[in-house]
Amino acid sequence: MNSNPSNAMALTSTTSNKKETVCIFGTGDFGRALAYKMIQSGYSVVFGSRQVQISSLIPKGAEVLSHTEAAQKASIIFIAIPRQHYNFLLPLAEVLNGKVLVDVSNNLKLNQYSQSNAEYLAQLIPGAKVVKAFNTVSAWALQSGTLDASRQVFVCGDDKKAKQMVMDIVRALGLTPLDQGSLLAAQEIENYPLQLFPMWKFPIFLSLGLIAFFFFYCLIRDVIYPYVNEKKDFSFFIAISIANRICPILALILLALVYLPGVLAAIIQLYRGTKYSRFPDWLDKWMLCRKQLGLVALAFAFLHVLYTLVIPIRYYVRWRTNSGVISQALNNRTDQFNNSNAWLSDSYLALGILGFFLFVLLGITSLPSVSNSVNWREFRFVQSKLGYLTLILCTAHTLVYGGKRFLYASSYRWYLPNAYMLSLIVPCIVLVVKFVLVLPCLDKPLTRIRQGWERNPRYSE
Amino acid sequence: MNSNPSNAMALTSTTSNKKETVCIFGTGDFGRALAYKMIQSGYSVVFGSRQVQISSLIPKGAEVLSHTEAAQKASIIFIAIPRQHYNFLLPLAEVLNGKVLVDVSNNLKLNQYSQSNAEYLAQLIPGAKVVKAFNTVSAWALQSGTLDASRQVFVCGDDKKAKQMVMDIVRALGLTPLDQGSLLAAQEIENYPLQLFPMWKFPIFLSLGLIAFFFFYCLIRDVIYPYVNEKKDFSFFIAISIANRICPILALILLALVYLPGVLAAIIQLYRGTKYSRFPDWLDKWMLCRKQLGLVALAFAFLHVLYTLVIPIRYYVRWRTNSGVISQALNNRTDQFNNSNAWLSDSYLALGILGFFLFVLLGITSLPSVSNSVNWREFRFVQSKLGYLTLILCTAHTLVYGGKRFLYASSYRWYLPNAYMLSLIVPCIVLVVKFVLVLPCLDKPLTRIRQGWERNPRYSE
Amino acid sequence: MNSNPSNAMALTSTTSNKKETVCIFGTGDFGRALAYKMIQSGYSVVFGSRQVQISSLIPKGAEVLSHTEAAQKASIIFIAIPRQHYNFLLPLAEVLNGKVLVDVSNNLKLNQYSQSNAEYLAQLIPGAKVVKAFNTVSAWALQSGTLDASRQVFVCGDDKKAKQMVMDIVRALGLTPLDQGSLLAAQEIENYPLQLFPMWKFPIFLSLGLIAFFFFYCLIRDVIYPYVNEKKDFSFFIAISIANRICPILALILLALVYLPGVLAAIIQLYRGTKYSRFPDWLDKWMLCRKQLGLVALAFAFLHVLYTLVIPIRYYVRWRTNSGVISQALNNRTDQFNNSNAWLSDSYLALGILGFFLFVLLGITSLPSVSNSVNWREFRFVQSKLGYLTLILCTAHTLVYGGKRFLYASSYRWYLPNAYMLSLIVPCIVLVVKFVLVLPCLDKPLTRIRQGWERNPRYSE
Repeated sequence: MNSNPSNAMALTSTTSNKKETVCIFGTGDFGRALAYKMIQSGYSVVFGSRQVQISSLIPKGAEVLSHTEAAQKASIIFIAIPRQHYNFLLPLAEVLNGKVLVDVSNNLKLNQYSQSNAEYLAQLIPGAKVVKAFNTVSAWALQSGTLDASRQVFVCGDDKKAKQMVMDIVRALGLTPLDQGSLLAAQEIENYPLQLFPMWKFPIFLSLGLIAFFFFYCLIRDVIYPYVNEKKDFSFFIAISIANRICPILALILLALVYLPGVLAAIIQLYRGTKYSRFPDWLDKWMLCRKQLGLVALAFAFLHVLYTLVIPIRYYVRWRTNSGVISQALNNRTDQFNNSNAWLSDSYLALGILGFFLFVLLGITSLPSVSNSVNWREFRFVQSKLGYLTLILCTAHTLVYGGKRFLYASSYRWYLPNAYMLSLIVPCIVLVVKFVLVLPCLDKPLTRIRQGWERNPRYSE
Repeated sequence: MNSNPSNAMALTSTTSNKKETVCIFGTGDFGRALAYKMIQSGYSVVFGSRQVQISSLIPKGAEVLSHTEAAQKASIIFIAIPRQHYNFLLPLAEVLNGKVLVDVSNNLKLNQYSQSNAEYLAQLIPGAKVVKAFNTVSAWALQSGTLDASRQVFVCGDDKKAKQMVMDIVRALGLTPLDQGSLLAAQEIENYPLQLFPMWKFPIFLSLGLIAFFFFYCLIRDVIYPYVNEKKDFSFFIAISIANRICPILALILLALVYLPGVLAAIIQLYRGTKYSRFPDWLDKWMLCRKQLGLVALAFAFLHVLYTLVIPIRYYVRWRTNSGVISQALNNRTDQFNNSNAWLSDSYLALGILGFFLFVLLGITSLPSVSNSVNWREFRFVQSKLGYLTLILCTAHTLVYGGKRFLYASSYRWYLPNAYMLSLIVPCIVLVVKFVLVLPCLDKPLTRIRQGWERNPRYSE
Repeated sequence: MNSNPSNAMALTSTTSNKKETVCIFGTGDFGRALAYKMIQSGYSVVFGSRQVQISSLIPKGAEVLSHTEAAQKASIIFIAIPRQHYNFLLPLAEVLNGKVLVDVSNNLKLNQYSQSNAEYLAQLIPGAKVVKAFNTVSAWALQSGTLDASRQVFVCGDDKKAKQMVMDIVRALGLTPLDQGSLLAAQEIENYPLQLFPMWKFPIFLSLGLIAFFFFYCLIRDVIYPYVNEKKDFSFFIAISIANRICPILALILLALVYLPGVLAAIIQLYRGTKYSRFPDWLDKWMLCRKQLGLVALAFAFLHVLYTLVIPIRYYVRWRTNSGVISQALNNRTDQFNNSNAWLSDSYLALGILGFFLFVLLGITSLPSVSNSVNWREFRFVQSKLGYLTLILCTAHTLVYGGKRFLYASSYRWYLPNAYMLSLIVPCIVLVVKFVLVLPCLDKPLTRIRQGWERNPRYSE
């Protein structure tokens, strides 16, 4: 019933398979958590430390030796100490010669040093084979086994065999190794755990900018204008009415911005007559964050739905309806039923519902586990065909919502058009250009270009 | 800082581990993308091409040689050229002898050729070991690294060692190989990327058929009948009112169809007295697309919820409510509060809410990543127990919604019953039969049959 | 075109790679399903059975031999028979010596035997290398290929090489092996498929208890009190009104309980001055089921949203609104518009909408596939920062909903305060204590403690 037989292993070899010994330099949180997990997975662990006394925190079954002794016992050594103390390895250079050193360190800031920790280590001990790994895994996750955040371990290194050894350990611990190539990738890997949603930055800052703009725009039109002209206080509009103007506007604009770069790329390819010249950098970046743009748009659509559905519960709306009914009753007058109003109201709601439904479908298919289970053709069908259908439905929803409003003078307070009109500009441009691109006279050459045809080929195979 | 040392590698061997060399025939999009990814992952790549001049499109670090020279440099050769040009390999048969040929090709149509491309290749070069792989991965995904659509690479081949070599490469590129067996599976693998939601076809065509039927049914009852009889124009009902009749009907029927095959299978097993004879083919197919049926049902339930929640916002509903109130006020009359109406209204809404809630729960647990994290007993508990509870709640919701309506003559316009009554047929049958099957006198033999007991055993172990 | 060449293989070796032969003891459902899958993946399968005659159920290509003969043909033997029959292996001990025995058995109850099946097997045949695996996979899933429930195969065993062999087979079948360490883990692995949402038990029982309490509390206040005092029958409130009181209360309390253990842990760490002493057991368990608590809270919030949005459709609400309007009209009186009421109503709805939106976001990020694709810092940002923001918004939503109600005598029927007031206790405590902990005078020492600093260090490195 001895689950930590590592000490015994060093002396005798009672079982048929000798357990591999790994060495860990540094008895801090991460070193101990790693040791704990490795012993659990059947490895024999020896710590290299300045102080050889065994603390109660050291996992049971692990030995603690001096750095030199520990290094001699294993062919693979985890360097679980901060970069600032790497210097102390210099006197050990000889014993570390030919060993695999695993750099698990992280920095506190993005690009803190010009050289990555792993490359610095490789330069300090040129005789060792340095592999970068495990820096994205937290000590707490290792020890508690709740590896919710990520099971992926990025691995890079110049020595292929050393990298393979580390990746085998990663797999043995129940994690997934991802080979990132040579040690040059270490900088990127070290930056990875310090990043905070890098792909989301552009969509979120763009949204914040648009929110600020449309908030003040609507504030002027819907709150300040009636206050100045009619001395009516509609400040409470801020909580729901204005929010429910901003959300659909942002949802529509951001959704259109998902499809705009594809349209631009098609124009560029048609103009250049080849697909083999690179797009401008901003277009490349824009195309890479389309998924995030779409999901932010979905979030605003979701908020719009909630804001719309609570309308009948709002005190203001209930009061307005009731006082309208009462004044009709008191004046002995009944509004006539208007069939075209019924059509407009119902079809704008129906378009919105269908658009939102497809939008949610798009969102679900962009979940990693769902998109992994469809093939490329299916993924493109959903993201392109269904995506354009969503854009068409949402644009139509807004158009029908507006109806004839753009003809009324009351829609132009202080010459400012209703906010929904502004939101229609980008989606209408995208849809019109896309419609033009789908015409056979443009679609045919574009398809040929995308299959590799070039108008002015540079070489022929 | 040289990240593409492959050319140097051919001459000298400065590092301790020699990089493996792979050969790629064909310098088209896929060949180049594959080369790019392989060089990134530490392989040395040599292209075989008719034209040995290096184009700017060839990834840095790759060599371009004649086919024969390139083939001699590597033990594994990727054939990244279309099937029509496979003939040119015939003169190379000798140099390809014993090599691993990886067929990455795709066709344009399902079952385009009677023989799969990979089998055709194996027949052309009988001395080579042909492995089918990579055809489900797109060039663009390889090059950009955005492998959203799928990380799975289906691999098949008759030679186990060759297959293992290819699977190692797949893993090294950060993808997941899935062994599909012998080269016989190539046809299926080549068809895979051409499929468009094959499992969804039956549920979607069934839904479209049912939608068409119920649309005309409701159109006749709700729009044409009042127009013919009372000259009232209710055509605007199409947008929301009729849609909100069709959606719950389809949700309920499709949900019942998820559980009907299980009930049929139980009856067949009881009748035959064994579980070891195959079900009819249609039943097998039906059982395999139950998940898709359920998800389509959920989509209709979701639409039903949205259509229902916008009811108070509709112009028609607001007008009808207001004119009702005004006429009451003008006639100095107040409707009495009816307690049983309040009970009916609230309980049908509550049943619907709870049913929809469980339905969403079922949907969430059928997400691949969620169903992967539960064990078999938990999965069955959710899909069977919670599923039947959902069906019971949704059927009860419909029954209470109907209430006494089926007794009123007005529910039978032109002898056509209200559409909701039709929707109750299938779920009621399923629930009644299931209830009978759960009775001990039938449940006990069924359980024994499912544990392997046979009424007329064919052999005893 | 022979896809089952295993029998031929035993005689001749026509292909370059000899297929590995595995032996299966037992021709029951699981044994046959396993054989079917293995033959499909290119293995050669031989059954060991008491009866050597081939049944029609045996997969094509598999041989059936006596136990001894079958065992001699393979180095790895799957024991697909129930534990009660393990005794029959005793006479085979000699031929099983040195073989890898894979125990695939399951029990019917949790902890049915004091010793796990695999350990019992290892004790019976001490010369064999026993590996526990495959018990979480069902025969049906293996045969039909619909491995929805789980692709994970837990593997444990004392012999590392034997374990590796089994894990290779698991991978070859397209499944994912997870090394669980030595054979001591077998008990846990055997219990795994018998568990039914063990992490969800505490949250669900807690919810049921709270539901029962708040149901009777609201029943007394909202149904029994008006019946006793005013002889009014509000029994129909049970379906929606009371449900819509209980759901938000539970959502808020459970959400606060997600963050309470973190706050308690911080207080304990501050008090002890170290992070290296273990938390009390109940706190550890509580912290491990926070995710489940949060998801149950989200479920109640979702129900609350649905219950709230159907309010305007309810017969009771429509009747109450209409009769209020009619009585105003008949009395020639109009309610004045109250600006602060509009502010309160709109801001409580807006807070609720935003809170629910963030809640849904938290739920989505806790999906396994989503949480796997973010790094540790991002996961903590969402779960901690956004989580607290959600709690603040939901608490504010409840506070604004209450408004000045707590001052009115009518809120205290039979001295019982309104139920929403009770729901505010836990979240307010959590938020106040968290606010205190964030003050620099406490935050600084806490951060240092969490970085490993100890007030009374036990040893210095």
